Amino acid sequence: MADSAPASFEEIRAVLRAFPEPDTDARAAAAARDARLTKPAGALGRLEELVQWLAAWQGRHPPRIERPFTAVFVGNHGIAARGVSAYPAEVTKQMLQNFIDGGAAVNQLCDVADSDLRVYELALDEPTRDFSAEPAMSEEDCARAVAYGMMAVEPGIDLLALGEMGIGNTTSAAALCHALYGGSASEWVGRGTGIDDARLANKTALIAAAVEKHRSLMTEPLEVLRCLGGFELAAILGAIMAARMAQVPVVLDGYACTAAASILHAMDSNGLDHCVVAHVSVEPGHRRLLARLGKQPLFDLGLRLGEASGAVLAIPLLKAACACHAGMATFDEAGVSGPG
Amino acid sequence: MADSAPASFEEIRAVLRAFPEPDTDARAAAAARDARLTKPAGALGRLEELVQWLAAWQGRHPPRIERPFTAVFVGNHGIAARGVSAYPAEVTKQMLQNFIDGGAAVNQLCDVADSDLRVYELALDEPTRDFSAEPAMSEEDCARAVAYGMMAVEPGIDLLALGEMGIGNTTSAAALCHALYGGSASEWVGRGTGIDDARLANKTALIAAAVEKHRSLMTEPLEVLRCLGGFELAAILGAIMAARMAQVPVVLDGYACTAAASILHAMDSNGLDHCVVAHVSVEPGHRRLLARLGKQPLFDLGLRLGEASGAVLAIPLLKAACACHAGMATFDEAGVSGPG
Repeated sequence: MADSAPASFEEIRAVLRAFPEPDTDARAAAAARDARLTKPAGALGRLEELVQWLAAWQGRHPPRIERPFTAVFVGNHGIAARGVSAYPAEVTKQMLQNFIDGGAAVNQLCDVADSDLRVYELALDEPTRDFSAEPAMSEEDCARAVAYGMMAVEPGIDLLALGEMGIGNTTSAAALCHALYGGSASEWVGRGTGIDDARLANKTALIAAAVEKHRSLMTEPLEVLRCLGGFELAAILGAIMAARMAQVPVVLDGYACTAAASILHAMDSNGLDHCVVAHVSVEPGHRRLLARLGKQPLFDLGLRLGEASGAVLAIPLLKAACACHAGMATFDEAGVSGPG
Repeated sequence: MADSAPASFEEIRAVLRAFPEPDTDARAAAAARDARLTKPAGALGRLEELVQWLAAWQGRHPPRIERPFTAVFVGNHGIAARGVSAYPAEVTKQMLQNFIDGGAAVNQLCDVADSDLRVYELALDEPTRDFSAEPAMSEEDCARAVAYGMMAVEPGIDLLALGEMGIGNTTSAAALCHALYGGSASEWVGRGTGIDDARLANKTALIAAAVEKHRSLMTEPLEVLRCLGGFELAAILGAIMAARMAQVPVVLDGYACTAAASILHAMDSNGLDHCVVAHVSVEPGHRRLLARLGKQPLFDLGLRLGEASGAVLAIPLLKAACACHAGMATFDEAGVSGPG
């Protein structure tokens, strides 16, 4: 991957043009087997859909989840200096250490889900620029972060759960959505880690002004990412793209993660077809964004932590769907009568 | 348990009067620890509530799920002879064999959740009576089924996932709900395993007439169960009661399972406080019933299989909640700055 890593937006667009289509044979094989399993047709609901989706995007039947991999990207944001978070920016680095030490939520969740976990640091001492004053990134830095994210798709993994950590990044997420989808800034803004009304008003005003300020530059989705995004969000975009190329289905987490993914959706409306969204978060913009993306979350559990926490919770559900599909007896095998 | 097993409704009521209260000290200890963990307050949403609920009903802090146990009760229904299901009644016994052989969905799901599974057969060759003609059970048979269900709470288990199998039992579930909560029969009736419009109309009419027919007998919830329920549903009621006595939190499954639980709720509005409902099923009556019980399901995945499938899917989620609570570092331990 390193030799061909994109170094410009044009090279990122070239990767996207090479995206593979779903494996319709594998999907059809999953549907055919499902119809013969000892249960009323459709009785496993969303689990049946997930099996067909996994088959289509892993390109094999039956689909399997034996090496799930969780990638958490960590970045710092210049906008954090403008008082948009309840926490100081140094918490990003402290939480990185907490991930490394095994003390964060995602560490425990990966243990339960039996998922490998790797945390990727994006130059925490050099945050993006304050996007209320200037574009957050240069094209080169943005493309480099995308390329860095592509490395997360290691050989042999069969599912990728994505997440992020970065003080200030729900501000970036809301700005991305406001720029991509319009409406008023307040529709896309939430309380993040738990800010009060005054900080919320400040956050909203900063986002509205920044989107207005950079409007003439934001002629395409990658320019939106460059002006308003963050390094860890660009890396998530890269990871999603590399997963598509490698036939690895993706589980997206909350608002910041899904906002990063929305850049790809804006470039190609089928660009997220290999992704499922694990949960809808408390951030009000997330539900709105999922509607724009046409994604139905698997869970609605009032989460608002990020760090891939919701995505990792979905891994056992996906394993369960695969286990039912592969392990259940058919009506013939079990001698169970059909309907009628 | 065998010596003191209830043999009459009065003895069942006596068990209920001995129900323990939640352990408020354990719950408070969970809340206090939660506030110190390295995450914004409340950021794990429903997972935080579940930990406090588990602590309160296991009576210990931290709560643990090391021996989850899944119990599936299997019974036959006289009403099945009246064409209320898409499947013939012999499927109940065939599916019992499928459970024993390891070929059903619940077998695969218990493997993924690392849950013990036991299947309880309730005299499949002697179904309940056809409740459209006469009460489904005698008091003695009904109480015996409740007592049988109580045995499912084996020593040492720390979580109980409940489910059922029985051709015709969504008809029984709908009748129980219609009798307990009123409204029109059609509000409580659904397509079960997948019946057509003609069978749905027949099912609805049978339920409406049966509730009307037995109204004078149904002077209390246990009489509702006796007139309209089934052996496996009575057993589920018993299992829920025994779990309360043994400080074992309970995960309920879909419509038939929750309808059985509603008998207990009708006897004591706090009687299901030690139970969580795993999911809301496709059966329209289930969502309506959950609203009556004040229960918010964990999942909405379009399931309608029964056999504890949704309940078992919740086990990894509950384990994940416990793992975060026990394993995460505190702000002090990790040297992470708090808000402000």
